[in-house]
Amino acid sequence: MKEIRDIAEKNLNIDPQILCKCGGAHEVCLNCNKCRVGMQNQLAFKESNLNELIDHTLLKANASTSDIKHICDEANLYKFKSVCINPCFINYVKFNIDSSLVCAVIGFPLGANSSETKFFEVRKAIEAGAQEIDMVINVGLLKENFHQYVFEEITHISNICISNNITLKVIIETCLLTDEEIIIACLLAKKAGADFVKTSTGFSTKGAQIEQVKLMREVVGPKMGVKASGGIKTHQDAIDMIEAGANRLGTSNSINIVKG
Amino acid sequence: MKEIRDIAEKNLNIDPQILCKCGGAHEVCLNCNKCRVGMQNQLAFKESNLNELIDHTLLKANASTSDIKHICDEANLYKFKSVCINPCFINYVKFNIDSSLVCAVIGFPLGANSSETKFFEVRKAIEAGAQEIDMVINVGLLKENFHQYVFEEITHISNICISNNITLKVIIETCLLTDEEIIIACLLAKKAGADFVKTSTGFSTKGAQIEQVKLMREVVGPKMGVKASGGIKTHQDAIDMIEAGANRLGTSNSINIVKG
Repeated sequence: MKEIRDIAEKNLNIDPQILCKCGGAHEVCLNCNKCRVGMQNQLAFKESNLNELIDHTLLKANASTSDIKHICDEANLYKFKSVCINPCFINYVKFNIDSSLVCAVIGFPLGANSSETKFFEVRKAIEAGAQEIDMVINVGLLKENFHQYVFEEITHISNICISNNITLKVIIETCLLTDEEIIIACLLAKKAGADFVKTSTGFSTKGAQIEQVKLMREVVGPKMGVKASGGIKTHQDAIDMIEAGANRLGTSNSINIVKG
Repeated sequence: MKEIRDIAEKNLNIDPQILCKCGGAHEVCLNCNKCRVGMQNQLAFKESNLNELIDHTLLKANASTSDIKHICDEANLYKFKSVCINPCFINYVKFNIDSSLVCAVIGFPLGANSSETKFFEVRKAIEAGAQEIDMVINVGLLKENFHQYVFEEITHISNICISNNITLKVIIETCLLTDEEIIIACLLAKKAGADFVKTSTGFSTKGAQIEQVKLMREVVGPKMGVKASGGIKTHQDAIDMIEAGANRLGTSNSINIVKG
């Protein structure tokens, strides 16, 4: 994958002599904030238990506590991996779920808050009980090649998550990015120590696309997570995303998906 | 307007014996956080200078600093009332505009952040140079009749704005509300001391609708602002909104509108 390696060497401050040992198509070691060499592969398979891959999601502006209670009950019944909600509901979800995790979105869905507001929101989300954090990058600044800004923002949030043992997913909003920008965003998120790259907010022009999920998996390699989200409605959609490389799915059609 | 008065008496903690002196269709004094009795009427007319009513707006996730620079240049040329942007650009706009104000959105566009994150974001926005604040209410909790929650959130932000001499607009996302919910949201925003009620984020199912703008003006009376936003593309759209009662327009089609 010469092209991905070239993009990494050109855009990240890395030593081209030190080779990658965790399997990313960048080939050169990114000197990540959290080294993944000793970690297990995170790949999912179509035979995987789908419920364990699903972030059961409700992010609409008009969601009420009774809507949230409903998806918590569903998560308890189907044992979904997490319940993914806006921050105002973290505490409420925490007291209404059994084994599923509490996943909160940060800087959502535009990612154009100030960095300090995102940092504040992450800290408060964790205090309130969030166990997984799905943050949105500053898409406009990434596209304008302010890579250091985007990297430092992710790194700061990643450090908060690492020190609290929280899973961090980085939403890159693929539908607004070129392939090269997707590659760069994945590299920055990986180097910053995030646990997942995630395709979409579900509030932009498109959700997860198979080719983009494949590209994201190729870039980050097998030891980092890839979450596909947005527009995943059917069992077949879910299988397609897993076969493209996703090991986590964000969807509100979770029950349709697990029932096949 | 017996119905609006009934809704006010039923949903707000007010004394039905004390009559309104500022002209709202609620008829009964709301005992507002900021009394408007001594203020001038805020109505606009189709003969008004349109540029002075326009918040020149760019809120897309992929907006770059060069896009923002471009709308600042336009605002300088056409002397728009404000430039309305996401918080990460406040400082940048401040250094690129002449007489227009810096307007920042808060809790945008879902309004489903924790209240404390919204408060933090407002304070940081003002520190960074914002002169107008457009905040989104928690729509889901309003619809579930958690009026006290919504009122206290607006009031807290209103107090920050009042003490800093900042204009506060409250986005109620009319397309997600019933007429009764629009009335309640307007009453809560007025009682909390906000300067404007605003129709829409532009990121939900619909933008400003004429009948809803009329209703909002009717509820709040002539001494509070009404901002119509979302889907205002032409000179005629702007005139229609002004005739419906709007005295501020949020749009990215500002130049088309002023050129007629």
